[in-house]
Parts: sequence; structure tokens; C-alpha cells
Amino acid sequence: MEKNLQGHRAGSPVRSGIPEHGRIPKYYAVKARIAELLDELGEGGTLPTERDLAERYEVSRETVRQALRELLLEGRLRRSGRGTVVAGPKLEQPLSLASYTEGVRRQGRRPGRQLIGLERFPCPSDLAPGIGAEPGEPVWHLERVLLADDERVGLESTYVRVARAPRLDTDFQPDSSFYGYLRDSLGISFGEADEKLETVLATPREALLIGTPPALPMLLIHRCSRDQEGRPLERVRSLYRGDRFSFTTRLRAE
Amino acid sequence: MEKNLQGHRAGSPVRSGIPEHGRIPKYYAVKARIAELLDELGEGGTLPTERDLAERYEVSRETVRQALRELLLEGRLRRSGRGTVVAGPKLEQPLSLASYTEGVRRQGRRPGRQLIGLERFPCPSDLAPGIGAEPGEPVWHLERVLLADDERVGLESTYVRVARAPRLDTDFQPDSSFYGYLRDSLGISFGEADEKLETVLATPREALLIGTPPALPMLLIHRCSRDQEGRPLERVRSLYRGDRFSFTTRLRAE
Repeated sequence: MEKNLQGHRAGSPVRSGIPEHGRIPKYYAVKARIAELLDELGEGGTLPTERDLAERYEVSRETVRQALRELLLEGRLRRSGRGTVVAGPKLEQPLSLASYTEGVRRQGRRPGRQLIGLERFPCPSDLAPGIGAEPGEPVWHLERVLLADDERVGLESTYVRVARAPRLDTDFQPDSSFYGYLRDSLGISFGEADEKLETVLATPREALLIGTPPALPMLLIHRCSRDQEGRPLERVRSLYRGDRFSFTTRLRAE
Repeated sequence: MEKNLQGHRAGSPVRSGIPEHGRIPKYYAVKARIAELLDELGEGGTLPTERDLAERYEVSRETVRQALRELLLEGRLRRSGRGTVVAGPKLEQPLSLASYTEGVRRQGRRPGRQLIGLERFPCPSDLAPGIGAEPGEPVWHLERVLLADDERVGLESTYVRVARAPRLDTDFQPDSSFYGYLRDSLGISFGEADEKLETVLATPREALLIGTPPALPMLLIHRCSRDQEGRPLERVRSLYRGDRFSFTTRLRAE
């Protein structure tokens, strides 16, 4: 493929480019060379040690460490046992009313959920309108870690009125799909949802629960959904590892 | 509003929570207290100096600096002249076929674009299918910085066959809407587009062009669009400051 004078591929100048003017930080030049090495090694390939890389590129181990840290944050590398290996592509999750479970299954991965907690508490006034509750009436907060092939990849918080799902604490299998439970056990179907996506840093609590490095960039999705009669149903905050997920959508002319 | 035993608000435990078990890093405890201070100061309020904050919370300036760095990366703070002020909410951009220009205008902000470059080059083979080109035929690469109220907030790269817009270099005002140009001057309307969103770190080149700190988490949107006859039209990579943007969408049951 063509490379232009700045040494970046013509088809992808935004991502792989280096400044035409201004200095290239030393760690970034090393990062670009390690990225090429990753392409050669291929998915699952084991990276040489920091010491080897420092010798190969004639830089300090601190410089190598900074380059590796960014490659880890971006999901190009992942820790595996005591070594570091080339990561596979990010999971592509469709933005749709389908559940996490269905989205992950479609990509041939095994979805799972691990219960962190199911609390019942009086609805705070800022949560009430989004789920159609009166302030103070009982609501559930269901918090679960999201798994893909047993790897912890996200954290999901669901808020729903207790009146909507009175026996959630006894009838619901917390490792199963909440949407499947609403549909099959309660006859509730989704009509539509408003979503907002943003990037945030993992808090220490989130990092601990998901098992990520602190301050890893995450994708946070806020969802407010309504049932088929248009009544507010649930509010969900889903946090996904930014190094492991991307989201896809199809847009149509109005 | 209710606070539970871990001191976080019941309605937003995912984001504001601190670990129930495990240690709370000292910088994070300071960050949480500064975040409360920001709520009190309100948008545009000036933050006390690092030295003042270090004295107030009885920690080192390095600890304060780490807390402030995260608050800056998350868009809670922004630099303003020689001081640091409380930032406003993120811009909410709808995921739709409407252009950047329209999306920003809807929020009462003044959109703008600044030309970085317009290049004409032979189409690389991996770019060809997405824009309906033969490998080697001439394509345009239009690269622009995105502005909102004169603030640099993103970077956009558009690839389109020269055959689709032969006079792009002479007829098109690079600070105007490309979609407006296609529609008004060439009679081309969009039919649909596939988009993929992910979070990435700014490269040094991108950081330089957008004027952000290096390694700021960004939102990257890849778009492949087709015209109303279903023919591939353009490929776009849009990079938005993660501290300044969120994206919204409405999902409907299929």
C-alpha cells in the first residue's frame, strides 16, 4: 500500500499519521514501530520483553513502557498470564434493542453476567421520571458484570420500578437476560429507547469490578426505554471496556 | 438525595461509586471532593490554584495534579487563559445522516470547519470497495478540523471518488458543509450509512491539529455512506474530543 512522505498510509492518515510539523515524541515513534511488529506477530502472538524491545529500538525501558501502555489502553495488546500478547479485533456490538446477550452471541462469543448486587431502595427524585416512578416508591437496582467468554468486559446497572417486576429477587436468574425475563415471564416488550454514548474514565470501583487498569477509557451508554404502550420502563447505564468494544449502527435518510 | 453507606448517590452508583472493598487511591478521594467543589462553583467558575487545593485537602501538589488531570480528560474542567474553569455539559450530537454543521447548529452553537488539506491520490485497494472505486482511480481526501464557537473540537477525513465530485478543488468552499455541496451543487442525496463508534487515544498529530492534550480519549466514528440508488458514496473518519461530545440515538423495536 502507498505511503506518503510522512510515512503514513494514504487510506488511513487520520489514525496512523505523525505530525507534519512539530516534534514526534520519542515514545510515539517507538509505539509506531511496535504496532508494525504486532501486525507481523498476528493475533495471540507473544510480544518480546520490555528489555528486548528497549535494546531493539535503542531507547530506555521507560520509553518502551509508555508506548506499551498506550497500546494496552487502545486494545492492541492484552495481558495473558505473565506475558503480553497481540489482542484480537474489538467486539462489534450493534446499537439496537436486542440485549447484550444476543449481541455477543451473534459474534460467536459466549455471553455471561455476574451479579454484583440487587438492591431495593426508595426512588430518588432525579431517577423517577425516566422510569415512570413516583419519588420514594420502591425501585430495583440490578448491577451485573458483563462477560464474554468468561472475560470481564463491562458493568451494567439497571433501574426499574419494583411494581413492574415485583418478584425480581426470587424469580429471576441473575446470570440470564433481563430482557428475556421481562418478555417471557412478565409479557413486557420494548417499544423504543433513547441512548446516549460517551467516553469516560473507569473509576477505581469500576476498574476493580471489571478488572481493568484504572483510568482506562470506557464507553458509557445511558439508555431510557419505554414499553410498547410508550410507558417509561427502565433506565440502564452500561459501561464497556473501550479497548474491547465498538458499536455499530445503520442510519437512514429521514 | 439519599447517599448509601459507601457515600455515593443511590441513583448513580456506577459512575460516582468508590470501591466497597479494596483501597481508595488518595488522588481519587481528592478528585471526588474537587468534583463536589465544581458543582458548587457552577459552569464557568474559576478553580482555586493547585497550591490552594493541596493545602485545603492536606495532600501533595502531585496528588492534586493527578486528580485535576482526570477531571480535565473527562471534560469536567477546561483550561481558560492562565486559569482552569468548570466546563459546561458535553455537546450532544445526534447519530443521524444530518451533517456536523446541522447537529451543532441545533444546539445553538456556531459550527465551523478549517481546511487542513485536500489531496488527490490513486485509490488504495483497501479503500476502494467502501467508496465504489476501482483501485488506482483518483480519489479525494478532504481533511478538516471541526469547530464549535471557534473552539477546535474534532477532525474529519472524507474520502470520495474524484469522478463523483470532479471540481471539488475549485467549486467547494472548504469551510462549508460537504453534504450541502453534494446536495445543492451536484444533486446527490444520501440514502443510508453504516457507522462504527469506538474510543481511541489522540495521536500526537491529531492532538496537535485539534489542540488537545496528547493521549486524550477521543470518540472515533467510521462512516460508509451510500446514495439513494444504493451506490457507495463516501467514507468518513470523524474524530471528536471525548471530553466535549456525546452521541445520541433513538432505537425502535424491529
